Amino acid sequence: MRVTVARHAGFCFGVKRAVNIAFSAAQGENRGPLYTLGPLIHNPQVVEKLETMGIKSVDSLGNLEEGRVIVRSHGVPPQVLVEAEEKGMKIIDATCPFVKKAQQKVAELVEQGFWVFIVGDRHHPEVQALLGYGKGRACLMDDMERVTGVSKVGIVCQTTQSQESLARGVSKVLSLLGGRLEELRIHNTICESTLIRQKECMALAETSDVVIVVGGKNSANTTRLAEISKAILEDTHHIEDAEELDPQWFRGKRRIGVTAGASTPDWIIGEVVERIKLIGGNGKHGREDGREGRNHPRGAEIHL
Amino acid sequence: MRVTVARHAGFCFGVKRAVNIAFSAAQGENRGPLYTLGPLIHNPQVVEKLETMGIKSVDSLGNLEEGRVIVRSHGVPPQVLVEAEEKGMKIIDATCPFVKKAQQKVAELVEQGFWVFIVGDRHHPEVQALLGYGKGRACLMDDMERVTGVSKVGIVCQTTQSQESLARGVSKVLSLLGGRLEELRIHNTICESTLIRQKECMALAETSDVVIVVGGKNSANTTRLAEISKAILEDTHHIEDAEELDPQWFRGKRRIGVTAGASTPDWIIGEVVERIKLIGGNGKHGREDGREGRNHPRGAEIHL
Repeated sequence: MRVTVARHAGFCFGVKRAVNIAFSAAQGENRGPLYTLGPLIHNPQVVEKLETMGIKSVDSLGNLEEGRVIVRSHGVPPQVLVEAEEKGMKIIDATCPFVKKAQQKVAELVEQGFWVFIVGDRHHPEVQALLGYGKGRACLMDDMERVTGVSKVGIVCQTTQSQESLARGVSKVLSLLGGRLEELRIHNTICESTLIRQKECMALAETSDVVIVVGGKNSANTTRLAEISKAILEDTHHIEDAEELDPQWFRGKRRIGVTAGASTPDWIIGEVVERIKLIGGNGKHGREDGREGRNHPRGAEIHL
Repeated sequence: MRVTVARHAGFCFGVKRAVNIAFSAAQGENRGPLYTLGPLIHNPQVVEKLETMGIKSVDSLGNLEEGRVIVRSHGVPPQVLVEAEEKGMKIIDATCPFVKKAQQKVAELVEQGFWVFIVGDRHHPEVQALLGYGKGRACLMDDMERVTGVSKVGIVCQTTQSQESLARGVSKVLSLLGGRLEELRIHNTICESTLIRQKECMALAETSDVVIVVGGKNSANTTRLAEISKAILEDTHHIEDAEELDPQWFRGKRRIGVTAGASTPDWIIGEVVERIKLIGGNGKHGREDGREGRNHPRGAEIHL
């Protein structure tokens, strides 16, 4: 049995940065109350660890009156920042710089007189924040039928969407607005690391007998990886941690692929790889640089 | 037999304006040599009439050294204007304002660092002029495969293209550039009158037994009208003037539709309608306002 871990499995730049910011804040000299608005990342194990460090996840600023609030990588609508400022709370902004760019594009388009359609999942906090920057002149692509009489249109994407959803959205705008459309500005704010991870996932599914996708069940980008893999390889399993691995999945299988969402920390991927090796019994690991062990499982050679 | 003439058959705003500008120039006090760069419009009868007024159509400024040059509704590349100025010739600019807008959009996009793809017919003078405004940073959509490494892309359309060609071009850019694409700005410079004429043509084909499309065989927009009608109604005929009408076409037919391209003058449409009425024998004309006669055949009620 050979285990191949996708090179870009796990934490992306924005998540790594947000976790580092949160850790620094918890360990810094300022020991006032420390909150995150919603779980810092969509991974229960990491959220648990943050709690032990004194970082409390809250749903809204609600009754809070003081302390520091960490804005997670997904960002928040601008009115939440205003609310925190009015309460005199210190804002620690861990919004992913790529998400921030998407927020700026929404704001710019609206300022320039465009109506903005957002390609994204209605309930995702990143999309909620993007809508906030639209100041009433933005809506989801899924709701575009409700918007009439617009001729200057902008499109901005949730950073974890696929190029296919963007293309579908653009076709929809062109076909529904047709000749009424004067100008269409598309900002392809889909994050490169999402794309790379998705491409790697496809290659992994094509060259494996089983694919294990590791990450929170509430993580949109992990779920999408599992969908991409499943479309190619039926033997795809989405798990949150090594405990969920079922030895039956690996019976008679030779090539095992492992990938993980942007919010899955390295140590969880490491545990999964170790457990698979135990199940397989021979421990042959697919890294081509020869380094093994649970701490550095990422970066196996996947040629796309 | 009932003859219905599409409301927007014939001269569009830009062509009417260009012909008026040419007539005024020929009748004005300045009696120096007067040229058009290429035929003023794609209609042989009109070009003949202009010749009798002393307006000569030339292929290029070539050996010309003085006089006035009329820029036709299609426009010319900016270097032609410079050439005329250097020769000391007076430029009479009859570029259609909608075409001028498309030229400005190409120039603006290139100035802002975008590469421009033009949705249009390679050999059409309007497209040649648009490419000129691209200063080497624009090409036809058909040639996009040759362009590599671009991430900021603009799309501008020849004014007489269809919304479908624009949509096809956009899909092509999204699918070929994918994740490399950072921003895409689409200027829908397709002229409304082209769209209206095309929609009317569809309605006409759907409600007629025979459709006659009148206009120069070298007129792109007339040819497109004939294609649109032919796709719905096999009994579609593209003619340049009444002489080409074949009585066989109308045998046993009841509902005759007539439309014409943007470069077809009213008097030619009038002659065609008169001839059809003679062939039909009863002269019942489909205008609902009751006015008849060869001088005002346009504007029959077509409900879209």
